[in-house]
Amino acid sequence: MKKYEQVAQTVSEQIAQGIYKTGDRLPSIRHLSEQMGFSISTIQEAYMLLEQRGITEVRPKSGHFVTQQQKRLLDLPVMPEYSAKPKETSTWAKVFHVLYQGENADVLFLGRAVPNLSVGTLKPLQRSLATLTRKGELRGLSYDYIFGCDELRRQITRLAVDSGCNLSADEVIITSGCQEALASSLRAITSPGDTVIVDSPSFYGSLQAIEACGLKTLELPTHPERGISLTALELAFEQWPVKACLITPTFNNPLGYTMSDERKARLVGLLNRYDVPLIEDDIYGDLSYEMPRPRTVKSFDTEGRVILCSSFSKSLAPGLRVGWVAPGRYASSVMHMKYISSMSSATLPQLAVADFIARGGYDRHLKKMRGIYKRGRDYLLEWITRYFPEGTRVSHPEGGYLLWVELPKKVDSMQLTTRAMERGVGIAPGELFSSTGKFTHHIRLNYADCPNAKMERGVKMLGELVAEMDSSG
Amino acid sequence: MKKYEQVAQTVSEQIAQGIYKTGDRLPSIRHLSEQMGFSISTIQEAYMLLEQRGITEVRPKSGHFVTQQQKRLLDLPVMPEYSAKPKETSTWAKVFHVLYQGENADVLFLGRAVPNLSVGTLKPLQRSLATLTRKGELRGLSYDYIFGCDELRRQITRLAVDSGCNLSADEVIITSGCQEALASSLRAITSPGDTVIVDSPSFYGSLQAIEACGLKTLELPTHPERGISLTALELAFEQWPVKACLITPTFNNPLGYTMSDERKARLVGLLNRYDVPLIEDDIYGDLSYEMPRPRTVKSFDTEGRVILCSSFSKSLAPGLRVGWVAPGRYASSVMHMKYISSMSSATLPQLAVADFIARGGYDRHLKKMRGIYKRGRDYLLEWITRYFPEGTRVSHPEGGYLLWVELPKKVDSMQLTTRAMERGVGIAPGELFSSTGKFTHHIRLNYADCPNAKMERGVKMLGELVAEMDSSG
Repeated sequence: MKKYEQVAQTVSEQIAQGIYKTGDRLPSIRHLSEQMGFSISTIQEAYMLLEQRGITEVRPKSGHFVTQQQKRLLDLPVMPEYSAKPKETSTWAKVFHVLYQGENADVLFLGRAVPNLSVGTLKPLQRSLATLTRKGELRGLSYDYIFGCDELRRQITRLAVDSGCNLSADEVIITSGCQEALASSLRAITSPGDTVIVDSPSFYGSLQAIEACGLKTLELPTHPERGISLTALELAFEQWPVKACLITPTFNNPLGYTMSDERKARLVGLLNRYDVPLIEDDIYGDLSYEMPRPRTVKSFDTEGRVILCSSFSKSLAPGLRVGWVAPGRYASSVMHMKYISSMSSATLPQLAVADFIARGGYDRHLKKMRGIYKRGRDYLLEWITRYFPEGTRVSHPEGGYLLWVELPKKVDSMQLTTRAMERGVGIAPGELFSSTGKFTHHIRLNYADCPNAKMERGVKMLGELVAEMDSSG
Repeated sequence: MKKYEQVAQTVSEQIAQGIYKTGDRLPSIRHLSEQMGFSISTIQEAYMLLEQRGITEVRPKSGHFVTQQQKRLLDLPVMPEYSAKPKETSTWAKVFHVLYQGENADVLFLGRAVPNLSVGTLKPLQRSLATLTRKGELRGLSYDYIFGCDELRRQITRLAVDSGCNLSADEVIITSGCQEALASSLRAITSPGDTVIVDSPSFYGSLQAIEACGLKTLELPTHPERGISLTALELAFEQWPVKACLITPTFNNPLGYTMSDERKARLVGLLNRYDVPLIEDDIYGDLSYEMPRPRTVKSFDTEGRVILCSSFSKSLAPGLRVGWVAPGRYASSVMHMKYISSMSSATLPQLAVADFIARGGYDRHLKKMRGIYKRGRDYLLEWITRYFPEGTRVSHPEGGYLLWVELPKKVDSMQLTTRAMERGVGIAPGELFSSTGKFTHHIRLNYADCPNAKMERGVKMLGELVAEMDSSG
């Protein structure tokens, strides 16, 4: 932590402790400099940071004052109404149109779930890639074992210990990103016409896979902090012939919730009682702001009913396309579906990721990213509080880099998306995250990049657009 | 060409011209050395090569004699009987068991369709991979456009000109190998229960995809030189509700045939008349021994009914997993299916392949491989002629590196596969190439590696095993 950040933290704590109250004037810069033994410029920087974070405000010629503090800046989103009936749908056209039409480099992309790639801790990974090819070794060019490279499978079992899982390398299949893990798992345990339960809102890639496989989606009420309703889940198990559940229980995309250990264990109990497999998407699990990271549902599973899917696309880099699945009792069918989809996965990225993990690079990278993403969340929350109109609600994720924003009901987020893109800002409209047209006044924002002026301008512009749309006829 | 190879070629040509006839004694080594002006050791090497190729034989203390020459060493395989009825089948267990159980590095793998990776012309590709990462550029780590990297799509359209296709980059989608191209195409144009026509024998990866998608396979009679029977195809179109055809019309895997331009054009006519799409697997097309390479069926297609699938897995390196599809009028559904299977493909290998092609590396590599693979075919044909029992028949491919061998009827090729593996040689049994249990006395062999003593020993051992199984009780 830099000096000015220390100072800012000290002052923040004093405010939190009530030493300075809302509306109080803070000590002058010169006074604080003498008092704390830091230079004038350090104190100035600290005050700028406090101001930027919305903790203080400057009144010209008067000094710095404590602004009104909110324990939780904004309320959590509200759950919509659910008519619990499985539905066959298709929303591909919408997803494709919104996310993949324009590929303009100048756009500020706040809509995509892409990690921060510009940090130094990724450099050793690039060195691994270069070294593995420079040596002139042929292995990176060859097919590897269809289950994936052994080195990587072993490293993944080592990482899985942190989430409470005891896997053997034999139980892991490497895939081309998490999407292939999810799609192969879905295909392995369902047939067209079957019903699949999802949390709601839900990752559009999963919804697309469910739809394209000819399956019916059953979206269940999902709390923005506690996750999918287990009561609704049990009712659905009673009422419908559910063939599978597909849930992201940790640092959920897009809603941000993390199910508690107690609820994860209860979920496993329900799966066992009703003999329903769970596809657990844990792609954000390693990006916890606190250590140890939360346990997976899989870690409570003793009967092999949980298919754990993950990837290094969010924790490292998406272009590698290195994902994995631990399919439990469904291993043979999942391998079959992965095989017919793409045979084996690209070898070189697998070897490079294995090397990077083995050398400790992954741990160092995660440690760095935890701080960056947490800070990113705090900034984005502050900017939204500052620039978005009343009635805006937001999620409070404790990991990952995605924020779910509920806008005033009058705001059509599809329209907002179009108008924001015209102004050079890409966002993900809430409708992409439902198969049944829910979340029409919601958006998902990405805060992976280090907070900067361009982002703040983008968020401010969004807030103004929202306010305008909210107040218009 | 080395000196001794020149000498051997001169002598071969003299034999072909009738200057030396079957049973004739060739000039002594000393005499030929004086006559041609090459060293004794060069002539010795040339004579060894001629002997190795079965053109001459040594009689102790007498000298070198011309053996009986055969214009075509062995006959072509015979077509089995077909009961033209679509069938829903599953042969995954067999494929998995035979091809992917043992991963022993000491085995001589003659059963897998893997290219020769140990040639110098691949080094610039590895340099491209290393350079792209060394620069510290982030693009190789990022998601690229879901259709694939633009550079690569542009290079592919350039290559496609050689096969008679005028594609624009917009019409090309990059996939994770050809398998993903084939599977995404199948899924895009069929629904479970539909009937798909294939040539027979047929690549097991395609058959697996057809089976796993819940489709019915209709195997049609296929001539080992002319390809799938167009008469049978038309009859099938009349008789059954065929939803798609999946064929490898150029350097077919495993049968080796290449359809003539005239037959390719007629095939397109039939597709148009009956409104049936064709998935054309052209993965071996660039590995033609003669230039220009044969045209694709796609090059005759003016209505967008042909979905052209290919990959750099066979022409460059399979571990890259860089394939592509030009889906014609089915582009939107194929993209959808590719997206839900794995989103985009790994970025770095795409950029490296594009760079390699742009610098002329791909053309140089193909030129080199044409010679290596043609020579490999000739050696393998000679060895089989020499070591396999009477009644053996073989294909005569003019591209690629796969030979289809029909053994005497009594030989069970599954049993042969097991017994050969016990002796350290992997082969692909014919049954893998049929969904209906055909080709029980057939095998597929790979001749990608430069001919060497270990391969010859392996083929000899196989021939002895076959002879033993043929003559036993």
